Amino acid sequence: MFERIFVPAQFRDALSGRAWVQAMLNAERALAAAEARAGVIPGEAAEAIAAACQVERFDPMAIADEGRAPGNPVEPLVRALREAVEGDTAQYVHWGATSQDILDTATMLVSRNVLDLILEDLARVAVNCAALAETYRMTPIAGRTLLQQAVPTTFGLKVAGWLVAVLDARRRLKSIREERLAVQLGGAAGTLAALGDAGPEVLRLFAEELELEEPVAPWHTNRVRIAELGAALDVAAGVLAKIGLDVGLLSQTEVGEVREAEGGVSSTMPQKRNPIGSALAVACARQVHAQASVLTAALPQEHERALGAWHSEWPALRNALAYTGGAAAGARRALEGLEVDPDRMRENLDPTVMAEKAAFMPAEELDPAELDPTSYLGSAETFVDRALAAYREELL
Amino acid sequence: MFERIFVPAQFRDALSGRAWVQAMLNAERALAAAEARAGVIPGEAAEAIAAACQVERFDPMAIADEGRAPGNPVEPLVRALREAVEGDTAQYVHWGATSQDILDTATMLVSRNVLDLILEDLARVAVNCAALAETYRMTPIAGRTLLQQAVPTTFGLKVAGWLVAVLDARRRLKSIREERLAVQLGGAAGTLAALGDAGPEVLRLFAEELELEEPVAPWHTNRVRIAELGAALDVAAGVLAKIGLDVGLLSQTEVGEVREAEGGVSSTMPQKRNPIGSALAVACARQVHAQASVLTAALPQEHERALGAWHSEWPALRNALAYTGGAAAGARRALEGLEVDPDRMRENLDPTVMAEKAAFMPAEELDPAELDPTSYLGSAETFVDRALAAYREELL
Amino acid sequence: MFERIFVPAQFRDALSGRAWVQAMLNAERALAAAEARAGVIPGEAAEAIAAACQVERFDPMAIADEGRAPGNPVEPLVRALREAVEGDTAQYVHWGATSQDILDTATMLVSRNVLDLILEDLARVAVNCAALAETYRMTPIAGRTLLQQAVPTTFGLKVAGWLVAVLDARRRLKSIREERLAVQLGGAAGTLAALGDAGPEVLRLFAEELELEEPVAPWHTNRVRIAELGAALDVAAGVLAKIGLDVGLLSQTEVGEVREAEGGVSSTMPQKRNPIGSALAVACARQVHAQASVLTAALPQEHERALGAWHSEWPALRNALAYTGGAAAGARRALEGLEVDPDRMRENLDPTVMAEKAAFMPAEELDPAELDPTSYLGSAETFVDRALAAYREELL
Amino acid sequence: MFERIFVPAQFRDALSGRAWVQAMLNAERALAAAEARAGVIPGEAAEAIAAACQVERFDPMAIADEGRAPGNPVEPLVRALREAVEGDTAQYVHWGATSQDILDTATMLVSRNVLDLILEDLARVAVNCAALAETYRMTPIAGRTLLQQAVPTTFGLKVAGWLVAVLDARRRLKSIREERLAVQLGGAAGTLAALGDAGPEVLRLFAEELELEEPVAPWHTNRVRIAELGAALDVAAGVLAKIGLDVGLLSQTEVGEVREAEGGVSSTMPQKRNPIGSALAVACARQVHAQASVLTAALPQEHERALGAWHSEWPALRNALAYTGGAAAGARRALEGLEVDPDRMRENLDPTVMAEKAAFMPAEELDPAELDPTSYLGSAETFVDRALAAYREELL
Repeated sequence: MFERIFVPAQFRDALSGRAWVQAMLNAERALAAAEARAGVIPGEAAEAIAAACQVERFDPMAIADEGRAPGNPVEPLVRALREAVEGDTAQYVHWGATSQDILDTATMLVSRNVLDLILEDLARVAVNCAALAETYRMTPIAGRTLLQQAVPTTFGLKVAGWLVAVLDARRRLKSIREERLAVQLGGAAGTLAALGDAGPEVLRLFAEELELEEPVAPWHTNRVRIAELGAALDVAAGVLAKIGLDVGLLSQTEVGEVREAEGGVSSTMPQKRNPIGSALAVACARQVHAQASVLTAALPQEHERALGAWHSEWPALRNALAYTGGAAAGARRALEGLEVDPDRMRENLDPTVMAEKAAFMPAEELDPAELDPTSYLGSAETFVDRALAAYREELL
Repeated sequence: MFERIFVPAQFRDALSGRAWVQAMLNAERALAAAEARAGVIPGEAAEAIAAACQVERFDPMAIADEGRAPGNPVEPLVRALREAVEGDTAQYVHWGATSQDILDTATMLVSRNVLDLILEDLARVAVNCAALAETYRMTPIAGRTLLQQAVPTTFGLKVAGWLVAVLDARRRLKSIREERLAVQLGGAAGTLAALGDAGPEVLRLFAEELELEEPVAPWHTNRVRIAELGAALDVAAGVLAKIGLDVGLLSQTEVGEVREAEGGVSSTMPQKRNPIGSALAVACARQVHAQASVLTAALPQEHERALGAWHSEWPALRNALAYTGGAAAGARRALEGLEVDPDRMRENLDPTVMAEKAAFMPAEELDPAELDPTSYLGSAETFVDRALAAYREELL
Repeated sequence: MFERIFVPAQFRDALSGRAWVQAMLNAERALAAAEARAGVIPGEAAEAIAAACQVERFDPMAIADEGRAPGNPVEPLVRALREAVEGDTAQYVHWGATSQDILDTATMLVSRNVLDLILEDLARVAVNCAALAETYRMTPIAGRTLLQQAVPTTFGLKVAGWLVAVLDARRRLKSIREERLAVQLGGAAGTLAALGDAGPEVLRLFAEELELEEPVAPWHTNRVRIAELGAALDVAAGVLAKIGLDVGLLSQTEVGEVREAEGGVSSTMPQKRNPIGSALAVACARQVHAQASVLTAALPQEHERALGAWHSEWPALRNALAYTGGAAAGARRALEGLEVDPDRMRENLDPTVMAEKAAFMPAEELDPAELDPTSYLGSAETFVDRALAAYREELL
Repeated sequence: MFERIFVPAQFRDALSGRAWVQAMLNAERALAAAEARAGVIPGEAAEAIAAACQVERFDPMAIADEGRAPGNPVEPLVRALREAVEGDTAQYVHWGATSQDILDTATMLVSRNVLDLILEDLARVAVNCAALAETYRMTPIAGRTLLQQAVPTTFGLKVAGWLVAVLDARRRLKSIREERLAVQLGGAAGTLAALGDAGPEVLRLFAEELELEEPVAPWHTNRVRIAELGAALDVAAGVLAKIGLDVGLLSQTEVGEVREAEGGVSSTMPQKRNPIGSALAVACARQVHAQASVLTAALPQEHERALGAWHSEWPALRNALAYTGGAAAGARRALEGLEVDPDRMRENLDPTVMAEKAAFMPAEELDPAELDPTSYLGSAETFVDRALAAYREELL
């Protein structure tokens, strides 16, 4: 039940059993189409298979249950699909492929869908950051290092730091989405032997059908694509958690410089407005981190298909995608409508925070307590402008 | 959908939304009962609350969905429970408690149930190991170090090694189940202030009602219990994965010394009997490892309730429990009815494996190739006996 | 160079190359002594070996460098030891043992030494906590949940929470130190074949010589002892980081309720007193966490000796021990002489923090802003007393 | 001492205390030069500072020891550097910078040096793979899935799979080395206030001096660069461990298809040739994995400088770099001069491995046992060619 608290419905839908079955069916359909185009199977067979590939006909939970015996969900799905196709054509279902070809390819299709959602949510987080950075570009706030006030900065520059990090993380996810999502097709052990000479041609057409990359060779146990995706999700979620952490710290009763608009309330403690969006972002990022760790730990896979390491990827990647969605939703909730209190920011500025200025201008014998914090903001505004320029170039 | 492949139904049921709601209701019921016994709330209120605490009345998914706003599932549950109780009595629902009190306590109740299942499955794995160790106590097999044959050992001793590890892991989980599962009750910030002077008495009775330990003090941000439980699950799953790894290696086509009875079959490669139980045990252990890592990483929690770290525990502990169940089921599947081939074990023994004996008895000028492996088994049988004695003492 | 910033000298010394060589020599000496007592090797051989086992004679770095070829440091050490013993006696060095027997046993000896240091430091942290809990048992401070003020608690109860967690973590480490540190002795593949019938007797005497536990059977690939030790270190470090995190948060400029006595200063920002002890505790715990994760991930080890997983344990356990020492030192630095500001604690109490009291006593129509926080501390003092009683029973 | 077993000297040198001090001095020198060019400090000051920045003058261990008090090594280094510069010029040392500016920039310089070593080693691994793939392009070997023989493949294609993964991992590290290593310069809290209006110009020149990227804004708590570097190292090490795992499995006594040229030998078991290179690659990758995990976990850093999370990066990145070097060295040792036994590969091919061919050509009633494995290699050679083409394009 906990996933529903952390992960919005759109991500859960895009990662549901139904979504996976749909993706596996898409892979089977595309495989048949590619094989028909390459002359490996009859064109009618491909048509019959395409007609049968309707997700409504299949029960995801039953397929999963039956997948326990062979250790993967593709085998029962193929069996059910063959029944749905009927007659001699049934033999052309899954022709020359191995379960991993279908599941890996489906993983790429599902990942693409969810990455699109994540990229969109990251863009919205960036939009929120950009607006805050713009609005509060010159609003003084204490710069805090090791949780101690150091020198003044601006709230705009603080948020610009979030913005740059979000853009960094998003850029990497986008490049993976566009360059690293590839079909998998190798057959039983990576040679496509069952396709005779047509292997490379079918591979090319299979990729074309699904608009995924064509890999140099089957990647059954070259899991760099999966590990890189996991790592990029981990980074993105970590960046979102950084926003959550800062919003949480700024929301402290004793600081009170910002307040989540949609904070959590307590029936017996009406004074509280808990920064729940922040808490969810932080919590989700920890789950993503753990799941991404499963994926990089799974890089060493035995021979042509691993005993367990491959299997460990399935829930790990699914949950990494889901909770990255959750982290993005948490950060959006934290930022959207964020109540910002510039007066409190100014009041909180400890007089001693100007000590550095006094130290760097010793000849002038400055009294830190008399100094205006806005007189010591250095290049804050310039850096805000640079961040906003990067944002505009990338997202507008 | 993947969880259904890895985790048997009994574990999923014991960790379902319904099971969590049931546990939270049990906590609310017990709290009211304890408060009535301590004279804090009227006896009739406790009875009315107990009557309303029927899991069928509540929709776990709706509660989870509504939990998104406040950031936990207890608040909507309490709201629903108050509606179910009706009238003035409703105010006594959740009297003096905080959401974390109920969720932490429910976590302990759910964990106890699942630990009982895990302990039983570990016992069955131990039974399987004991039978194999007994039967094959003197069956020679190559001892293999760094995947190279070293000197002979016996298959019985190999399995006795698994057995001792399973007993070790189980002992720790059992001691946690019996000594470390405690109620949580601290109220808003750990002082039980809303209970006036009755706090400690209510705490004692609350623990009594639920047959859980009474803690020295509220442990809202002392998460050692949770982290220790996670670590013990991690160890147990790792031990089960060791069995899976060894069974998988012994099942290799080129080794062929054992074969899972319920191996996975392939339609196009009928010769294969994939060691799926082993693969599932290995895969599940990796998921447990990741989730346990979330739990120990969550030890540093802020002040009296954490911003995110506490929340990160919920899916992590739930999944750690679920996949430990999966790992146990995988290992059981691997071991139950395991087909053992003593002849193959003997044939595989490389002649050179007796080289050490020749080296340690240089005066006798032994020819390794002529030596009988059963003449160099040292204390194998004694160690098997010691392991079986430990097993009998602990489990019979 | 970084380790010197995080880990005090006493821990680095107890984990130095010299310390490991010393421990390996102790293991070789004890093995020879046990074998002589069991009549397996001549008594003079054991004496000659004992005489040669002087750490000054060996160059730890050279041994490590030479260990790269065989993949472990024991082989070059044994070679050097045989040279030191000279003559026919040299053959009795390492008699019947395998490299892993010596390295695992040495690991236990080193761990015991470092655990003693850690247990002592944890006791000192507990002493500091107990003194603070006693002194500030009734000093009101805001109870903070999700970084928001909730209801009042006392600083003494806050610290009592740290104390209970430290005692929990220490108890587990102590029980591992006393019950789970065992010799390793199995010979090439766990049968002790080279010792003929004398295996179990030599094992018993070997354990007696070193005052370590005697295992049921060789544990070459049953790594539960190592994993449990790693997990317990992870928990201990996490508890110390919790203290660091809280001290850091309480030290914030805007909160200012405590101040590390030995805080870090800045030349250009003299107003700052950075909570460096806290920062180091937090940082060290993260390193311990990572290393402990290597250890539990290494539970599945192949057959009778693993290809890499065993090797991965060496730096991981060494660093887990070192950085737990670092975390303890960080927490001690944070706590020793901690400057506590009860007035600031009182001032910081937000008036609205009494809202819960008003809510729970609606009939009395209380105005939260008028309420005395000390009137709503519930069982805080009782819980402090219970924690102190547990402390006295365990440590005094 | 263990690091010496795992990590070759060139990596340890490039990551030694001396190397870090050198890098910090380079950063200080470049900062002064940039500030002189921008007219912020006198040109003679920059020259005097450059003259003093000689690594021989400083004691890395003493600096580390003194770094314990302020919690970082820059402060004592700056103090020592100011003493070395003497007179009024001393004040211009570290002008306007914060410790983190220097340490982060030094981290980038050190990382660049070590990445160059790693890229070179990965290239050598690729060269080895390419040669093996070329030589054994059509050498039949069993394709193995879940450790069971499935259908034939070629040893060349197996190695081509390693090659593609190495190229993938190397490409990512190379792009990070070329595009993501940036100077850090923000001053006390990221505004460069102490530099007045000259901040951006000094930043630009600072980057120019060191040939590092100029960031959009200071990245004191935007740790994406560090996390991405860690993740890329994790992936590279994982790929190297995959090679080690496969070589180890192929080296098994019962398989015997390859043998490390520089395997480890055993005095009492001369028949063994342990795949130590493989074991070291596997072990190193696990350490890299753990350290990379510290880096992504450290993404959420508080405000303008973190309390502990930043500190946790130092040993983590250092060790991630070191052990990636170790993994590369291990894989090189495993592959260089690898003894390949094509006859054994052919002999090991189980007759039933041709069952799939029989299944896919049912009309022909083939007897699997009679089939020639070389008649069922599908597109193996084509995929080898594609991998080699990618290799040539990228590395030659």
